[in-house]
Amino acid sequence: MTEQLSITYHLHCQPGESVEEKARDIGLEQTIELPHELAVRSGWLGYAGRVEDLEHLYGESYRAVLSYPGDAIGAELTQLLNLLFGNISLKDGIEITAIDWPESLLAALGGPGQGIAGIRDACRVPDRALLCTALKPMGLDAEALAGLSRAFALGGVDIIKDDHGLTNQPAAPFRERLPACQRAVEHANRETGRNTLYFPNVTAGRETLRERLDLAAEAGCRGVLVCPMLIGLEGMSWIRDQYGLAVMAHPSLTGSYFRPEHGLRPELLLGEIFRIAGADASIYPNVGGRFGFTASTCQAINDRLRGPLGELSPALPTVGGGVNVADIGHWLDRYGSDTIFLIGGSLYAQPDLTAAAASLIRELERCHG
Amino acid sequence: MTEQLSITYHLHCQPGESVEEKARDIGLEQTIELPHELAVRSGWLGYAGRVEDLEHLYGESYRAVLSYPGDAIGAELTQLLNLLFGNISLKDGIEITAIDWPESLLAALGGPGQGIAGIRDACRVPDRALLCTALKPMGLDAEALAGLSRAFALGGVDIIKDDHGLTNQPAAPFRERLPACQRAVEHANRETGRNTLYFPNVTAGRETLRERLDLAAEAGCRGVLVCPMLIGLEGMSWIRDQYGLAVMAHPSLTGSYFRPEHGLRPELLLGEIFRIAGADASIYPNVGGRFGFTASTCQAINDRLRGPLGELSPALPTVGGGVNVADIGHWLDRYGSDTIFLIGGSLYAQPDLTAAAASLIRELERCHG
Repeated sequence: MTEQLSITYHLHCQPGESVEEKARDIGLEQTIELPHELAVRSGWLGYAGRVEDLEHLYGESYRAVLSYPGDAIGAELTQLLNLLFGNISLKDGIEITAIDWPESLLAALGGPGQGIAGIRDACRVPDRALLCTALKPMGLDAEALAGLSRAFALGGVDIIKDDHGLTNQPAAPFRERLPACQRAVEHANRETGRNTLYFPNVTAGRETLRERLDLAAEAGCRGVLVCPMLIGLEGMSWIRDQYGLAVMAHPSLTGSYFRPEHGLRPELLLGEIFRIAGADASIYPNVGGRFGFTASTCQAINDRLRGPLGELSPALPTVGGGVNVADIGHWLDRYGSDTIFLIGGSLYAQPDLTAAAASLIRELERCHG
Repeated sequence: MTEQLSITYHLHCQPGESVEEKARDIGLEQTIELPHELAVRSGWLGYAGRVEDLEHLYGESYRAVLSYPGDAIGAELTQLLNLLFGNISLKDGIEITAIDWPESLLAALGGPGQGIAGIRDACRVPDRALLCTALKPMGLDAEALAGLSRAFALGGVDIIKDDHGLTNQPAAPFRERLPACQRAVEHANRETGRNTLYFPNVTAGRETLRERLDLAAEAGCRGVLVCPMLIGLEGMSWIRDQYGLAVMAHPSLTGSYFRPEHGLRPELLLGEIFRIAGADASIYPNVGGRFGFTASTCQAINDRLRGPLGELSPALPTVGGGVNVADIGHWLDRYGSDTIFLIGGSLYAQPDLTAAAASLIRELERCHG
């Protein structure tokens, strides 16, 4: 791992703040964590990030490029996040806007285990866009959630996932919910001849995560939903390596990184980084829904999930957060068929869930054909 | 788990934004994730957060209190974080300012395994403030880091921790660094009669974390350093339960939650939540150092770590991020003796590390006696 990692920052300075120092201090803070003079005097600058480029953007904002030795990271996702934004998260006016990934790091971290091809294969949907919905709300019992699963599966929904807040509430404990929903989907599949998948939410602490994954694998699930920032980003790679299940990533808790003038761009975290860490599908809130992503951010996330990234498999953008049933044609046209549309609330608002789902699937098929 | 969790938010509205809707929508977004009308019509509001109080603060800012059924969380730290700030992290103008913890949730999550008493006991320092330093910089080999460990231990530093960026760099792989530093400290202890502890940084992905903890336990370490937001918050409880080692928490990546008008207050995350999740010591950047915490935030973190919180043990504030050797008396006076002073850079700047550390310990002893 001798290649360099190169990171582009937008730096937003306070009046009187020196951008040269700000850039240099990032390179120290994220690595050797010593004052510059002391590091120079002691000959300890070897692992420090180095400012490669610095240019003025506008007002007090600048673009800086720093390079870091690959050895500072190794092949650990925890240390990657630490080097990217660990200590500087506690500072101000630092936005990471681009990362130039060493091929060796990408290869070591591995990326999606299934990717677009694997999920399409599991769903037996070779080319059209995929439809996903969420089981909710928390408070329903396992039987009611299984009933919803059946209704959605009969309508041909491709992936039925637990809402990310469904964990182990007494109304529908995981051990009851999982087999009930998985069986409901399998029965419906026998009737429809389709291959709807059920992705249970396995997000939990270490020991419980393992139990839930064991149960999911035993029940015949092909994939799971997980919130990477709740279990630790590396949890996705671990699921990939230990279980071979497809991983759909939920953006819970990630919004904190997307603040104005300080953070990581959404396309880096939900696009590149989640993909590198093993997400086969990455959920994000669509423009115009109940969250604030812009059209260009959404497009950028799609590009980072599907575009070239070393030898890594592409992953599926999973567009949710208030996508309306009525607008599916519009979004399909804009985002293309290598997309999962995650439609929750506006599907639940329909009187006949099976008919509503079937109509959406027909629309996806029609637009494709 | 039938008690309620009550959360206080400061809501900052955009012009024209209804604060009543904003408050109500938080209660829905964080639980049942369905539109209000649909939830009412379907009788699905049972698990939704309920607005208990709403008052005007100033301008477009309001204070809201919502209550959530304890059953929505169970006793899972992942789901606790999810309910606190999962989806709403992706929104704007929502600050969590206080959490009223159900006793049953606190008891179930358990808090520090060692606490202040346990760490004091391990260090054999019954009452004065503790001195901690960090091994750095990355790039030094294991022998050099062991040499630093020896110098600090001879000076009487109570806890020598790895810098949180020291992971498995080829210059000092974990498997070489850990025994070298632990042995150096043990040898020095035999000379001084003190009981300096070495806390290796075990932050890593699941399998590697376990390997590093096994090595630390086998080598005789009494505690470890870990970055909870890199391994997943629950990782601290897991270390407590599986290994019984003391846990010193590092704030890497937490700064994202502390943004103006949107996030979690630092005293909640680095104070209460880290303590509840099992931190025996929690590192935070001191006011006046190279990060931007205010004096009142620092005091609030101290209070949340040490004050009453159900039956949980108190934890040690670990004040770092640019504490100067020369100011130790001032900070000791302000923060009191149940504090760990983490002094890195300004100690490294001294010509004789052992003498500099010894002088700091004398100061801590003098001010106490």
